[in-house]
Amino acid sequence: MVKVDFNSDLGESFGNYTIGLDSEILKQVTSANIACGFHAGDPLIMEKTVKLALNENVSIGAHPGFPDLQGFGRRNIDMKLDEIKSMVAYQVSALTAFVPNHKLHHVKAHGALYNLAAKNREIADAVVAGIKLVDSETIVYGLANSELIAAAKYAKMNFAQEVFADRNYQADGSLVPRSQLNAVITDPDEAARRALNMVKNKSILSITGEMIPLEVDSICVHGDNQFAIDLSRKIRQTLIDNGIDITSDIDVRG
Amino acid sequence: MVKVDFNSDLGESFGNYTIGLDSEILKQVTSANIACGFHAGDPLIMEKTVKLALNENVSIGAHPGFPDLQGFGRRNIDMKLDEIKSMVAYQVSALTAFVPNHKLHHVKAHGALYNLAAKNREIADAVVAGIKLVDSETIVYGLANSELIAAAKYAKMNFAQEVFADRNYQADGSLVPRSQLNAVITDPDEAARRALNMVKNKSILSITGEMIPLEVDSICVHGDNQFAIDLSRKIRQTLIDNGIDITSDIDVRG
Amino acid sequence: MVKVDFNSDLGESFGNYTIGLDSEILKQVTSANIACGFHAGDPLIMEKTVKLALNENVSIGAHPGFPDLQGFGRRNIDMKLDEIKSMVAYQVSALTAFVPNHKLHHVKAHGALYNLAAKNREIADAVVAGIKLVDSETIVYGLANSELIAAAKYAKMNFAQEVFADRNYQADGSLVPRSQLNAVITDPDEAARRALNMVKNKSILSITGEMIPLEVDSICVHGDNQFAIDLSRKIRQTLIDNGIDITSDIDVRG
Amino acid sequence: MVKVDFNSDLGESFGNYTIGLDSEILKQVTSANIACGFHAGDPLIMEKTVKLALNENVSIGAHPGFPDLQGFGRRNIDMKLDEIKSMVAYQVSALTAFVPNHKLHHVKAHGALYNLAAKNREIADAVVAGIKLVDSETIVYGLANSELIAAAKYAKMNFAQEVFADRNYQADGSLVPRSQLNAVITDPDEAARRALNMVKNKSILSITGEMIPLEVDSICVHGDNQFAIDLSRKIRQTLIDNGIDITSDIDVRG
Repeated sequence: MVKVDFNSDLGESFGNYTIGLDSEILKQVTSANIACGFHAGDPLIMEKTVKLALNENVSIGAHPGFPDLQGFGRRNIDMKLDEIKSMVAYQVSALTAFVPNHKLHHVKAHGALYNLAAKNREIADAVVAGIKLVDSETIVYGLANSELIAAAKYAKMNFAQEVFADRNYQADGSLVPRSQLNAVITDPDEAARRALNMVKNKSILSITGEMIPLEVDSICVHGDNQFAIDLSRKIRQTLIDNGIDITSDIDVRG
Repeated sequence: MVKVDFNSDLGESFGNYTIGLDSEILKQVTSANIACGFHAGDPLIMEKTVKLALNENVSIGAHPGFPDLQGFGRRNIDMKLDEIKSMVAYQVSALTAFVPNHKLHHVKAHGALYNLAAKNREIADAVVAGIKLVDSETIVYGLANSELIAAAKYAKMNFAQEVFADRNYQADGSLVPRSQLNAVITDPDEAARRALNMVKNKSILSITGEMIPLEVDSICVHGDNQFAIDLSRKIRQTLIDNGIDITSDIDVRG
Repeated sequence: MVKVDFNSDLGESFGNYTIGLDSEILKQVTSANIACGFHAGDPLIMEKTVKLALNENVSIGAHPGFPDLQGFGRRNIDMKLDEIKSMVAYQVSALTAFVPNHKLHHVKAHGALYNLAAKNREIADAVVAGIKLVDSETIVYGLANSELIAAAKYAKMNFAQEVFADRNYQADGSLVPRSQLNAVITDPDEAARRALNMVKNKSILSITGEMIPLEVDSICVHGDNQFAIDLSRKIRQTLIDNGIDITSDIDVRG
Repeated sequence: MVKVDFNSDLGESFGNYTIGLDSEILKQVTSANIACGFHAGDPLIMEKTVKLALNENVSIGAHPGFPDLQGFGRRNIDMKLDEIKSMVAYQVSALTAFVPNHKLHHVKAHGALYNLAAKNREIADAVVAGIKLVDSETIVYGLANSELIAAAKYAKMNFAQEVFADRNYQADGSLVPRSQLNAVITDPDEAARRALNMVKNKSILSITGEMIPLEVDSICVHGDNQFAIDLSRKIRQTLIDNGIDITSDIDVRG
């Protein structure tokens, strides 16, 4: 049976500030990327979010990002490679405090760090080294076909290729940047159709018409608002209706 | 053979800011309390400090503090108990990233958190709960006879009673606050004599003349400046000359 | 004609995090206390909030707090008096960047700093000294009859006595702490009645039955949620219906 | 009489962390760039540093940087232009709290922000707009011939062209990056000779042999360590011996 994981970013509140419909999206996903206090989240929110996720049988992953609460981890910071490695290790390890047996299902870099690691092999290697320092058996999530996947493979780590159902792709397999008009697909039906096609056909059509082959281990969905929740529900139901198994127990590669 | 551990705070630099003569004091001590990035330290400095300590065969402990870099963790912050617990767990777990097998020798709270946990049992319980969440076998370091020791005992954690050779004690076993003139003993000979007496006689004379019984598992020394280094060397040599074994392999209690 | 100011805390969002219905509450109030980036707010949000307030002809005040984003400035931090003074001056002065002619209508301390300054004269003096360093003509807002008012008076600063329509008072004129059940008045009619009585009778009945005389220069209302907006609208309308002039152009004391 | 200003970065300590020989370098310079709490400095240190500088008759300037204490403001952060403008205004305005009449002599961007503003006109415009929001009469310090100078000119702000005596220049007038071996001139005699030549001849020879014309309003020197102090003393004395007037009362341009 074909299977695929659904992952979402969670625990992005901070102190008195609340963001994201965590309880809602947890009913749609099979794995959670939990912010680790650098770009979002704080220790208490991390602990509570892990419990919330476990209650829904959602697998726990760490979601390390740049130390930039004001920028929500979405701004590139020119950190040195050894700083990136230590910073990733620190955050990933911090989250394990709240996880049964201190074992994480996966680690997924956040925002600007994710995007940099997708394109820049040195940064990807630093991210993977940071993860490996904490847990050499966890799964590295990365954009399908990206440098981060190459780095995980090279480091002999488990990895999972991630796709976005609601984003357009460029010819090189990268996402169309959010700064461009056609970056996001807003029609739920189209997003669901794209997700199904990616999973079944192991490929996606770029905006310029190239067929990009990709493995699909996990689909990223969002819980920022009600629209996002509805969108992910639609995608999920479409996959289930077509016999796809939604599970975090994927056949990890590597 | 009577034995005692020598511990010191390390890794308190931050980014471009350097503090403490870490390389020097590492030659005097048997265990290191490494700052975890909240009151001092950052991920890269943590990683480097762990390596430095391991090179000197010094045992690694976590040194969690309040989230207050500006105040160096020395200012009380009115945090809720569940926040304290999560915050301690977060920091302790973060440090384990850089430690072989992710096992810490001990955990010692820093500054204002240490002092609050010495006097306030609820805060002590929260600190111990945070430590236990990460590692139920590590050693909780606390001021001898303090509430933190009581909390560790109650939680069935290993613990070690800590004394200060260069500080005067009050009748209740607490330290004379640094705001008072007679808080600190500056004569190296007297400090060394006091350390030896405490270890041999399991007691200390308070400034008001009471004999306070205490167990001495570890002596705290400092590496802030050359005087502190010399002081700790003097104390160390005096103990060795009197047949005391300086080792982190103490008979932990609990 | 009797007149009174309506003030509310604004600009408490941060980076990607949004809090408070600023646009709504701005229609109810005559003066705004704008967060200055330490407990809430950031430079861009400060600039935008000032513009928003000016568009509604709302007078601009600074709202300095403890450096504690995670605790939203609601946790006491044991800062030294000279640190408090500098910290208040820094925040107040920072906000003036975005205000026409760099002149503020008033300054109101936030959260834990406000409460400490209400009870502790030394802290109150430090807060007032910080404000005076920036602007010796602005109005110091403080809890009616509090130490902060005394400090402003002593420093020959303008000041305004503030009351809370939705909070119960203790016999000494302080607010019943939020930790107690009867701290907050939730019935809009009762809150409105209390506000009117305070303004007209210059006194409030404490929960233990004492009549506390007070001057009422400004009433604090909240914009956290729709209920708070409705409550402030009710209070405002009741005052207007009874011939009270709602204005920030109060007869400042001092 | 030919005159030139000597400026240096000051007030870069933070909380318990001390950096720079401020008292020493203050005896060598005529204007001080004081850190504003984002990349270094804190409110109390800012207040004390201003007093220290005024005691030495050194003119006060603000030294705003990226919000990055860990990176000491030396790491590029991808901030939006309106964020940069607000952030600069916030920091500059904050410092004015501690300055007589709230008037600054000048503003000089720090580290990564300085370098970005030297090369990128949009960022330069944002920096200048932030400064102008606070004080339209202060002097914008910028690398001679840089985009920041062009931006200040365009905004009709006063400006001063800055040179570095101990750095090599590239053909385009930018500094050789510190990552290159020949970035820094370490021979005090050569640095002094270069400073004198720049001031007298209004030009500098690039490492590839091009003669770069430049105006020299201010020379940047450092107080990080004893070598830097000695270097700046040597440069200063050489200029004085050759009849140059060292003063912050320069003929500002714009």
